[in-house]
Amino acid sequence: MKIITGGVTAAKGFEAAGVEAAIKYKNRKDMAIIYSQKPCVLAGTFTSNVVKAAPVLWDKKVVEESPFGQAVIVNAGIANACTGKEGYDYCKKTASKAAAVLDIPEDSVLVASTGVIGMQLPMDRIEAGVEKLADTKKDTLDAGTQAAEAIMTTDTRSKQAAVEIEVGGVKVTLGGMCKGSGMIHPNMCTMLGFVTTDAVISKEVLTEIVKSDVIDTFNMISVDGDTSTNDTLLVMANGMAGNPEIKKGTPEYETFKEALHYVNETLAKMMAGDGEGATALLETKVIGADTKENARILSKSVICSSLTKAAIYGHDANWGRILCALGYSGVQFDPEKIELYFESKSGRIQIYKDGVATDYSEEEASKILADPEVTVLVDMKMGNETATAWGCDLTYDYVKINADYRS
Amino acid sequence: MKIITGGVTAAKGFEAAGVEAAIKYKNRKDMAIIYSQKPCVLAGTFTSNVVKAAPVLWDKKVVEESPFGQAVIVNAGIANACTGKEGYDYCKKTASKAAAVLDIPEDSVLVASTGVIGMQLPMDRIEAGVEKLADTKKDTLDAGTQAAEAIMTTDTRSKQAAVEIEVGGVKVTLGGMCKGSGMIHPNMCTMLGFVTTDAVISKEVLTEIVKSDVIDTFNMISVDGDTSTNDTLLVMANGMAGNPEIKKGTPEYETFKEALHYVNETLAKMMAGDGEGATALLETKVIGADTKENARILSKSVICSSLTKAAIYGHDANWGRILCALGYSGVQFDPEKIELYFESKSGRIQIYKDGVATDYSEEEASKILADPEVTVLVDMKMGNETATAWGCDLTYDYVKINADYRS
Repeated sequence: MKIITGGVTAAKGFEAAGVEAAIKYKNRKDMAIIYSQKPCVLAGTFTSNVVKAAPVLWDKKVVEESPFGQAVIVNAGIANACTGKEGYDYCKKTASKAAAVLDIPEDSVLVASTGVIGMQLPMDRIEAGVEKLADTKKDTLDAGTQAAEAIMTTDTRSKQAAVEIEVGGVKVTLGGMCKGSGMIHPNMCTMLGFVTTDAVISKEVLTEIVKSDVIDTFNMISVDGDTSTNDTLLVMANGMAGNPEIKKGTPEYETFKEALHYVNETLAKMMAGDGEGATALLETKVIGADTKENARILSKSVICSSLTKAAIYGHDANWGRILCALGYSGVQFDPEKIELYFESKSGRIQIYKDGVATDYSEEEASKILADPEVTVLVDMKMGNETATAWGCDLTYDYVKINADYRS
Repeated sequence: MKIITGGVTAAKGFEAAGVEAAIKYKNRKDMAIIYSQKPCVLAGTFTSNVVKAAPVLWDKKVVEESPFGQAVIVNAGIANACTGKEGYDYCKKTASKAAAVLDIPEDSVLVASTGVIGMQLPMDRIEAGVEKLADTKKDTLDAGTQAAEAIMTTDTRSKQAAVEIEVGGVKVTLGGMCKGSGMIHPNMCTMLGFVTTDAVISKEVLTEIVKSDVIDTFNMISVDGDTSTNDTLLVMANGMAGNPEIKKGTPEYETFKEALHYVNETLAKMMAGDGEGATALLETKVIGADTKENARILSKSVICSSLTKAAIYGHDANWGRILCALGYSGVQFDPEKIELYFESKSGRIQIYKDGVATDYSEEEASKILADPEVTVLVDMKMGNETATAWGCDLTYDYVKINADYRS
């Protein structure tokens, strides 16, 4: 696997664009397109929230019922959630408009929205945006970046990742983009994620890989514990690499899975590290757990703890809060047995052992916690299972952003 | 039921004190005692956190195994949690010291601590504090207030409540105090709560009433979603009112239950409203739910949502976040059917109906949300069950307090 530059246009045959459509923001790009020159096999996972945004309902239908997909139209600024029948009709209208200008079937067009809940989309501007997008889409890496920028809301930077693998001697590429950055607690998140690949792979195999991989990537991050109404991950495979088809039980299957995992994990971590107001990525790695599920629950509990997150912001080695968060996770364990470390590029330090604090240096710990990527390592001493979760610190700016978001 | 002034010394035969013991803070009271002139029937509920502070382990044993209790020694500043065997020994030493100076059995002394996790108690100062407490305890309302002030950590105000009822023609009094104000998500919380009563009641009946009541009072509040290692609620009944014993299935049982509920609910709401950094009490009342349990889950999900809490701080009627929080609670419902209102002393306004926003005035909504007590009323339209949960807004000061807490 080779890590390369790029995003949704890295793979063969994918085009993208980002344009200003004045949906809600002014003087910035707020609509994007991903377009494939050939029809794609689709896989998708969506929010588990009972309150599902209209685009989620539309896309679920396309992913489940359409033979293939070929374009995604995304807007930022308005989430098209809690918008009733009118909101759903707007998805159809958007797809219909895109189908007309791109000359593809309406049921091969996916839509995605992110932003304020409860407002209706300005359809005239959406339709004008679709025309602009169709006119300006390109297969360049820069076009992918334009799209990644256009889907941002409170994100401070765009998020892309791409890799190359070899399948039966043929180069296959996967690339993706996503956006956060509040209401992030995917089960699926305000997260929108899009991954494209030119691999030849069946819908069935692609779906299986995507569904199993999100459990350990996008579903292991949290910014604020709020599972959004719009969370969407779409994976599109157009087969243009011309590789021998990727089948289950083969080494190529594992290679592809690993590549998708890399793209997903990289995008997920970018989202966590760019959580609203964040100054640091908080990683929690649980090792030595008795079951995989318990490892996941424990690591997520730590990255979701408001008190731990505030302590990380303060570069304060307040390990008691971490122990507390492990303790209320619902997993049973013996607090006297576990071990705790802080880790970053500045070093590694053991904090807790045999039921009490070690004789660590507060100064050294604080230095480790001042880095922009901080890892809490927990050894449960109960077995061999591991899991990693990603979050961010809790800062004044998180409050600022969310107290004023609509104004 | 008559609401009266006072706290733990309101009921007959209870004494209290608060003194400066320099446990961790300087120039403020940080140790308290509750003492009953006669032995008390005890009931208690404790944190569900796997990581339980030493005083929790000690008190559980006393409540379960001792025939009665007579005194509680509380310190603020250090939580005596994650302190291993040494920490537990300190509980025993504290109880032993109190037993000696008060001339009561060691196993009738309860202890409670709140503050930083992981530090050991300075036992010399604790023991000196116990002596001072024994010397200065009184049965006055002011002494109760001194105690309520001494147990505060990041609380901005002390918290007391008391009521009088009549049982078989005899006046019975209940009074209590508690402290918050971070790591509050009781299942039981950093919450410490103490309720005293002079009622004649058996341990069995008292325990049953306490355990059922906390579900709808202390367990329905959250400041930050972190369930502390120290959460303790102790209820002490010394029988000095001389009423005919309160038995199950009688009108007196209901009267007592209602009185305890009032005290518990009042203390719980005070804790939520004085959550770390809070500027407002956020109440969420769910009506029309299909089951009581679902009503509780839905109301708690709203008061726990960081995004909703930040919006309340900003006086922003961002109802989409409330709908979102209901949606990820795990309860199934039809978003098109439910109705949403904001309510405060400034008025009441319907915000959401038939799947979309009503034509409400943002200005009016913002005015309602600017009050120090705000209610979100949700009608699920599915049945007749109701529940209420209490939280607070999320502010800069919550971050400030918790980024710097140990320094």
